[in-house]
Amino acid sequence: MLTLYDYPDSGNAYKARLLLSHLDIPYKRVVLDIDKGETRTPHFLAKNPNGRIPALELDDGTVLPESNAIIFHLAEGTRYLPSDRVGRAQVLQWLFFEQYSHEPNIATVRYWIKHKIPMTPYIEQAMPAKRKAGIAALEVMETHLKKREFFVGERYSIADIALYAYTHVAHEVDFDLKPYPALRAWMELVALQENHIGIYQE
Amino acid sequence: MLTLYDYPDSGNAYKARLLLSHLDIPYKRVVLDIDKGETRTPHFLAKNPNGRIPALELDDGTVLPESNAIIFHLAEGTRYLPSDRVGRAQVLQWLFFEQYSHEPNIATVRYWIKHKIPMTPYIEQAMPAKRKAGIAALEVMETHLKKREFFVGERYSIADIALYAYTHVAHEVDFDLKPYPALRAWMELVALQENHIGIYQE
Repeated sequence: MLTLYDYPDSGNAYKARLLLSHLDIPYKRVVLDIDKGETRTPHFLAKNPNGRIPALELDDGTVLPESNAIIFHLAEGTRYLPSDRVGRAQVLQWLFFEQYSHEPNIATVRYWIKHKIPMTPYIEQAMPAKRKAGIAALEVMETHLKKREFFVGERYSIADIALYAYTHVAHEVDFDLKPYPALRAWMELVALQENHIGIYQE
Repeated sequence: MLTLYDYPDSGNAYKARLLLSHLDIPYKRVVLDIDKGETRTPHFLAKNPNGRIPALELDDGTVLPESNAIIFHLAEGTRYLPSDRVGRAQVLQWLFFEQYSHEPNIATVRYWIKHKIPMTPYIEQAMPAKRKAGIAALEVMETHLKKREFFVGERYSIADIALYAYTHVAHEVDFDLKPYPALRAWMELVALQENHIGIYQE
């Protein structure tokens, strides 16, 4: 059985939980508290030397870190990943966009605020820079969604799952989604997909 | 014929040039000067709304941004991407590691210094944070390479190409690679691959 190293508040881990729910795949869940350093123990570092969740332990013992590698792996051969080569490349385009232009901004701001990380001179300077870059990412998404319902190939895919994870909780730390009607319509559509679960759902 | 929107100094664009050389695929090269705002013109934003190079224009007119999506697309069905499902997932694991934990640190420091970006309070605070995170990424790579020659499946793949791009120029901005013998041996092996080209090679 698959084992997911998880943390309930993590949008990255939620991507894996959401896809596993869509696919109706049973798995063992091991919750590690990132605030208590449980992802930096020698035991876990032996599994993932980068010391981060999520990580998915496969049946052969391989430990696969990186949320978007995990969902690509789970989605191969299913309706959640296009079967054509250009479609797959476009899904990857949005997965890399998410990890480079979206998550480091919106998810990091959310983490700093929700986890009450002490303000340092670095965070004080980085906060407005990350807010600005996060808004730029939302605007790229809005532009794209103005002309289509889903990110790639006119159907729900792991590109939508990856981008939904931290977009739908961005309001928790005062990213204003009112200016983005296409984005809001897309989030409603995502929540209507079969076997959808919420990020805070046990 | 493929068209690569390119910038000579970019390690991200170099990944695509290097793989196109390995694969011996001819392409048209369009150089855009990022310092002169040539990736933010309405003409280019219509091709890539995220306003970044590299972007690869395919024969059907699709414009594919994101360096690691480009090299995954080009590598599908070739020796540069494993044919087994777990191997592909592990390649993606390293591609996401590169874009999340390596490039935003080492490549950003390199860009700020080489392009003489004016020091702001944000850059002043971010520089040491990014140096520290860049060193942590190099240490994860060194740990992994201590036990193997290449990143995935005991053969050269796009995981090596992606990580080589900014690692082999990290010394230009004073990242010290002396403490990482496995990393240095790996860089020598990468440079020995068939049809290897240098980042500054015209």
